[in-house]
Amino acid sequence: MSAIDKYNKRAKKINSLLCVGLDPDFEKIPEKFKATPFPQFEFNKYIINETHEYAAAYKPNIAFYEAKGAKGISELQMTTDYIQKNHPDIFIMLDAKRADVGNTNTGYVTEAFDLLKVDGITINPYLGQEAVQPFLNRIDKISSVLALNSNPGAGEFQNLDVGGGKKLWQQVVENVSTKWNTNNNCMIVMGATHPEEMKEARSMTGATFLVPGIGSQGGDLEMVMRNGLDSDGLGLMINSSRGIIFSEDPKKEAQKLCEEIRKYQTN
Amino acid sequence: MSAIDKYNKRAKKINSLLCVGLDPDFEKIPEKFKATPFPQFEFNKYIINETHEYAAAYKPNIAFYEAKGAKGISELQMTTDYIQKNHPDIFIMLDAKRADVGNTNTGYVTEAFDLLKVDGITINPYLGQEAVQPFLNRIDKISSVLALNSNPGAGEFQNLDVGGGKKLWQQVVENVSTKWNTNNNCMIVMGATHPEEMKEARSMTGATFLVPGIGSQGGDLEMVMRNGLDSDGLGLMINSSRGIIFSEDPKKEAQKLCEEIRKYQTN
Repeated sequence: MSAIDKYNKRAKKINSLLCVGLDPDFEKIPEKFKATPFPQFEFNKYIINETHEYAAAYKPNIAFYEAKGAKGISELQMTTDYIQKNHPDIFIMLDAKRADVGNTNTGYVTEAFDLLKVDGITINPYLGQEAVQPFLNRIDKISSVLALNSNPGAGEFQNLDVGGGKKLWQQVVENVSTKWNTNNNCMIVMGATHPEEMKEARSMTGATFLVPGIGSQGGDLEMVMRNGLDSDGLGLMINSSRGIIFSEDPKKEAQKLCEEIRKYQTN
Repeated sequence: MSAIDKYNKRAKKINSLLCVGLDPDFEKIPEKFKATPFPQFEFNKYIINETHEYAAAYKPNIAFYEAKGAKGISELQMTTDYIQKNHPDIFIMLDAKRADVGNTNTGYVTEAFDLLKVDGITINPYLGQEAVQPFLNRIDKISSVLALNSNPGAGEFQNLDVGGGKKLWQQVVENVSTKWNTNNNCMIVMGATHPEEMKEARSMTGATFLVPGIGSQGGDLEMVMRNGLDSDGLGLMINSSRGIIFSEDPKKEAQKLCEEIRKYQTN
């Protein structure tokens, strides 16, 4: 089974391309969770219990846990353990945007894949393939490479013309597709706020896109679906974090987004 | 006091531009430390006790601690606490190469600057200034931005021509120097393996360079010093990790490198 198969299997089984971002920003967690010994974990447990039937993937962003130091990392571990025990077929993407030089990455690889036992991790391409090879060598796991992010200022470098009208993010997509992905274990991060570019990226690669920026960041779901789906009606992992987890009714919001996704899934 | 002053003051006081990398790779730590309850911390304590008189800065790379999960983060905290208590004038640079989108960075900012209380952190420019502004907003702390790394494959994207013969890493140096550094709290990472490019970078900015790649990676110290020093005989933070900490005699190796640095410090 290739690394992406776990996600595709779950996506097909529940007919969903939804990824729920587990970003337990401590300031925003309801007070009742803060009164427990493990607030971030208890909040996540609640979110997972509410949303799992619509979730093809969960994506904890490690920054929110690191804000709490060693305790936060323990609660992240409790969270990934909880998902693996109760919903072993749901894909877990660790959003960490990591990258260091060569074997230094081994520390991050160990943390993500051997301690937290997540299925994938987001990585930053700036240091080049040679640097992040320790991630790519894990053929049992997904490396999801940043190409074009959803933040307003992402273009400062990502949109620079690197020759012949090609932009840096396109060069990243090209290199990942033709060189980095020999183990068929790469995904690519394409922000929902750039639907035209997603069309372009889809023409360049068959890799699955991790798509942040739906919901509070203003990405257009219909355009994302139209431009990003592959010929199997897969190829997208569509993330929403705040729009679901800090809503009045996370279950209802997850269901709503899941059903919107299904509406545009014409295959 | 601007954020870089702490480093410059220490550098002048002990006449050293040496930064010792605290990278306690668990596989390489001597057995006697592994037998203690806090092996990474005990090893670091030993290294700090041996090298502090030559160290203008220490640079723990968080990847080596994350490999040990929550316990590793605790030992990193013990390490930074130990330095702050015993050598409060030594600058601490957390090597984390972080970057996320907007306020998500707040988690990393809190971890680095409020929990670990380090003086600076390395950040990755790929997402643009708008994304990493939460780091830059901390005027009391240094953000050290990756420009040209020391790994053999760093050029895959960093050396791309982004127009008019300008390379991506030069664009990063230019943007950091002219736009990101309004609070005078940016440093720039320039690998020792690219001494010619360091000359070019020095002509573009007065920022201090964090220089990895001396020692085991083969950087040429004399060229680095000749091309990277500023007119005050400062402007460089020269890191060595493995070459010192895993040597037979860390004190001797730190002294040796420190004295080599002094030799080329003509000011």
